[in-house]
Amino acid sequence: MKLSVAQIAALIQADVEGDPSVEIHHLAKIEEAEHGMLSFLANPKYTPYIYTTKASAVIVSRDFVPQSPLSATLLRAEDPYRAFTRLLELAAEMLSPRKSGIEQPSHQSEDASWGEDVYLGAFSYLGKGVKLGKGVKVHPGVYIGDHCEVGDHTVLYPQVVLYPGVRVGKGCILHAGCRIGSDGFGFAPLPDGTYQKIPQTGIVVLGDGVEVGANACIDRATLGATEVKDGVKIDNLVQLAHNVEIGAHSVIAAQTGIAGSTRLGKYCMIGGQVGIVGHLRIADGVKIDAQSGVNTSISEKGLAFRGSPIQPFQRQLRSELLFRKLEEMYKRIQTLEKALEQRD
Amino acid sequence: MKLSVAQIAALIQADVEGDPSVEIHHLAKIEEAEHGMLSFLANPKYTPYIYTTKASAVIVSRDFVPQSPLSATLLRAEDPYRAFTRLLELAAEMLSPRKSGIEQPSHQSEDASWGEDVYLGAFSYLGKGVKLGKGVKVHPGVYIGDHCEVGDHTVLYPQVVLYPGVRVGKGCILHAGCRIGSDGFGFAPLPDGTYQKIPQTGIVVLGDGVEVGANACIDRATLGATEVKDGVKIDNLVQLAHNVEIGAHSVIAAQTGIAGSTRLGKYCMIGGQVGIVGHLRIADGVKIDAQSGVNTSISEKGLAFRGSPIQPFQRQLRSELLFRKLEEMYKRIQTLEKALEQRD
Amino acid sequence: MKLSVAQIAALIQADVEGDPSVEIHHLAKIEEAEHGMLSFLANPKYTPYIYTTKASAVIVSRDFVPQSPLSATLLRAEDPYRAFTRLLELAAEMLSPRKSGIEQPSHQSEDASWGEDVYLGAFSYLGKGVKLGKGVKVHPGVYIGDHCEVGDHTVLYPQVVLYPGVRVGKGCILHAGCRIGSDGFGFAPLPDGTYQKIPQTGIVVLGDGVEVGANACIDRATLGATEVKDGVKIDNLVQLAHNVEIGAHSVIAAQTGIAGSTRLGKYCMIGGQVGIVGHLRIADGVKIDAQSGVNTSISEKGLAFRGSPIQPFQRQLRSELLFRKLEEMYKRIQTLEKALEQRD
Repeated sequence: MKLSVAQIAALIQADVEGDPSVEIHHLAKIEEAEHGMLSFLANPKYTPYIYTTKASAVIVSRDFVPQSPLSATLLRAEDPYRAFTRLLELAAEMLSPRKSGIEQPSHQSEDASWGEDVYLGAFSYLGKGVKLGKGVKVHPGVYIGDHCEVGDHTVLYPQVVLYPGVRVGKGCILHAGCRIGSDGFGFAPLPDGTYQKIPQTGIVVLGDGVEVGANACIDRATLGATEVKDGVKIDNLVQLAHNVEIGAHSVIAAQTGIAGSTRLGKYCMIGGQVGIVGHLRIADGVKIDAQSGVNTSISEKGLAFRGSPIQPFQRQLRSELLFRKLEEMYKRIQTLEKALEQRD
Repeated sequence: MKLSVAQIAALIQADVEGDPSVEIHHLAKIEEAEHGMLSFLANPKYTPYIYTTKASAVIVSRDFVPQSPLSATLLRAEDPYRAFTRLLELAAEMLSPRKSGIEQPSHQSEDASWGEDVYLGAFSYLGKGVKLGKGVKVHPGVYIGDHCEVGDHTVLYPQVVLYPGVRVGKGCILHAGCRIGSDGFGFAPLPDGTYQKIPQTGIVVLGDGVEVGANACIDRATLGATEVKDGVKIDNLVQLAHNVEIGAHSVIAAQTGIAGSTRLGKYCMIGGQVGIVGHLRIADGVKIDAQSGVNTSISEKGLAFRGSPIQPFQRQLRSELLFRKLEEMYKRIQTLEKALEQRD
Repeated sequence: MKLSVAQIAALIQADVEGDPSVEIHHLAKIEEAEHGMLSFLANPKYTPYIYTTKASAVIVSRDFVPQSPLSATLLRAEDPYRAFTRLLELAAEMLSPRKSGIEQPSHQSEDASWGEDVYLGAFSYLGKGVKLGKGVKVHPGVYIGDHCEVGDHTVLYPQVVLYPGVRVGKGCILHAGCRIGSDGFGFAPLPDGTYQKIPQTGIVVLGDGVEVGANACIDRATLGATEVKDGVKIDNLVQLAHNVEIGAHSVIAAQTGIAGSTRLGKYCMIGGQVGIVGHLRIADGVKIDAQSGVNTSISEKGLAFRGSPIQPFQRQLRSELLFRKLEEMYKRIQTLEKALEQRD
């Protein structure tokens, strides 16, 4: 699909400087763009690229003053990054047009209900008493267990599984293969060394605007609810155990695991492959670096940590530096010992 | 659903002390319970809560003597925790009533067979020669490859995949999206730096009473079998490579990975995000702490380890403590050097 | 299924030494083989086993000279390992005979197309404009989004998901539940601490001969493509973020995660549970040990690294050794301090 620069300018309220008839068929980064592509300049670090880019057009800010001649047509916008993101959104919508209607075969229990403009893909399954809001998109192969509720405009990509009783808010995005509501890992040890399963009768509640990555797992609570609050973003292959609570607008990168009953605050940033042990409280705005191991509650807000077990960020960096100097330290101790010996 | 305290007392053989007509609609922890809920008191640590809980009724032991007046009705039982667990089990059964029968569309190869009281959910697939015991629950979207065998009363949650030839015991629980029998990761390097796939012709055998978490993966053996013995509990997103053997009644927490041909003993406890390299032997009853890296066989039974690479638990804790004191150690070495220099 | 040693010899161009009528019903390792099984001897380390093995027949090299009498029939072949691998391949083919045809119900969009000899399993889904080469095997429950392309003879095991626009080369093997083309984890922070989703409009391109493990996830690019080049082998539960590039014939073990925009060279070997941060460049032939954390680009080819953060392999081993001696070092510093004090 092709659009002229003039048409694009109209979509993003930009002013054209150069040839408005140039045709654009792709969006690209300024350093990778080719002829026929549109890019943008927002971060000053990338300014040098505007003089060498092969892009046919570039979105720049209204006050950008070129220092040398440019080959690209310019689109001047209030906020070039926001304007480009808007075009990305339009492109994304064109890529996967909003589906609606019911594909067959698919399974809807007799008392399942749904709002207008839903999509129920082939081989999807709605259990008893399931309630879907309007505009919900249930892609092929999704399983929604008995009595689940899903809010308006939430998208469930192929093969998502919601176990019975799970509640998902509005405007959420659940990626392929995520499992919401599997049993918590709870077993009572018996005197003979074997284990008895502790029934997991709680649920999972996801707030509004939550995104859950592909193949991530969120276990149901033993009692009560595992809770993921509004606006939380969870990456692929993350594990949240039973009775975990994630505060609003926190982000958790891929392959991180959080053990049972831990409560994470709001606006936290958790890196990839982090492990957090159970029954902790982590304050709002805390940042945990990738591969860290958190084994203690954190009561002060907004601090950054790193390491396994964690230390304050800068202190951990210094410890790591000295870990790499252990050989030197060992030799200096030996030298000191010899020096003392020689004086005896 | 509501039950009176008198009805609940009959279910768990308890004696009522207080109003037997009080209605209960939920089970909850004693510190979180509200009006209309039932809780229990087993761990003495929680005794103070019984004087402040809003629970309408609490299960206590037969010899519990209150130190102050109580508002909750008491149910006196032999073992309060066991009695409460029994109620949880009943609640769990009510939450997901035992399904049976065959939903359509679903696929059963002409020579697949199954016992009485099975459930074959919509979009489930039974390959050639598949044999299911009685009471097996095959939830929607499950795939069972050719010649697999599944023992009595095993539950396969939605979208489990059993590759051809896999054998699963009785009374197992396989959570959504676990993959049993995928190819082991085996490739022979060729002289030009590329790889030739080594066919993985073995199988996977799960014993009785095994639980496998959501999205966990257990690879088939190159030759022979990858074996998970009776009573083993495996958490979400765990990876077991080809020819691994897990001894009976061991538990493995989420996101742990065990490389090829390693044999873990019985009654082991492996924490989350642990990595164990291939071709090791780990003795019975060994405990490995979360995020550890095991790179050596362990021949002594029942010991605890931690760290990457592992050390005996207490020793690793001391090393970690000193890691956090490296800066102090470095400065003390410098001070010593200066002191010696000044004496020269 | 049984074959005589004479029949097997014909399949692998071997010469029989001993009874050619012996019947073989299984392949096994030389140290585990029983009566009726065939094994092989390639690695001299295993030579002692040939005198004690219960195998009915063993493939040996043409120049093998036994030092004592043998009970097993010998098959003399040019390359015993290659010959055995060939039999494994034949066994694997018999285990899962090549399926073809279209099982019902399954979903093919009106303009989807496919070559000869494809298999479209029950409950599989082909979106609009999907193009499959010849001999492609789409197992039950696979979802292939709009406009995906899959090359000749590629196998998609049950419940693989290809999001729209993904391109997969020839001769690839995609294991159960892998997710190709899920959204990259990209969000722009807003002034109020919440996040705005950055549309992920790129694609994923897998080259020829790529293998992707069960439940692995490869995210689509923000713009452009996430690329996995020819011959790359990816193990179970691996995470590749948006805009990652993996050079040809690299191998990545289970549960490793690579963050956004990192480019890995050719012929690299990455161990299990490794984390690599975003925006790095890793040279060809680099080896990273299991559980390492890579936080810096590597420009020199073929080197080995270990640790989190990484150091050159041997140096990291020495640091780890001294980490375990920290207590001794601490005491020696104390001893030095006391010795100096006493001299004052």
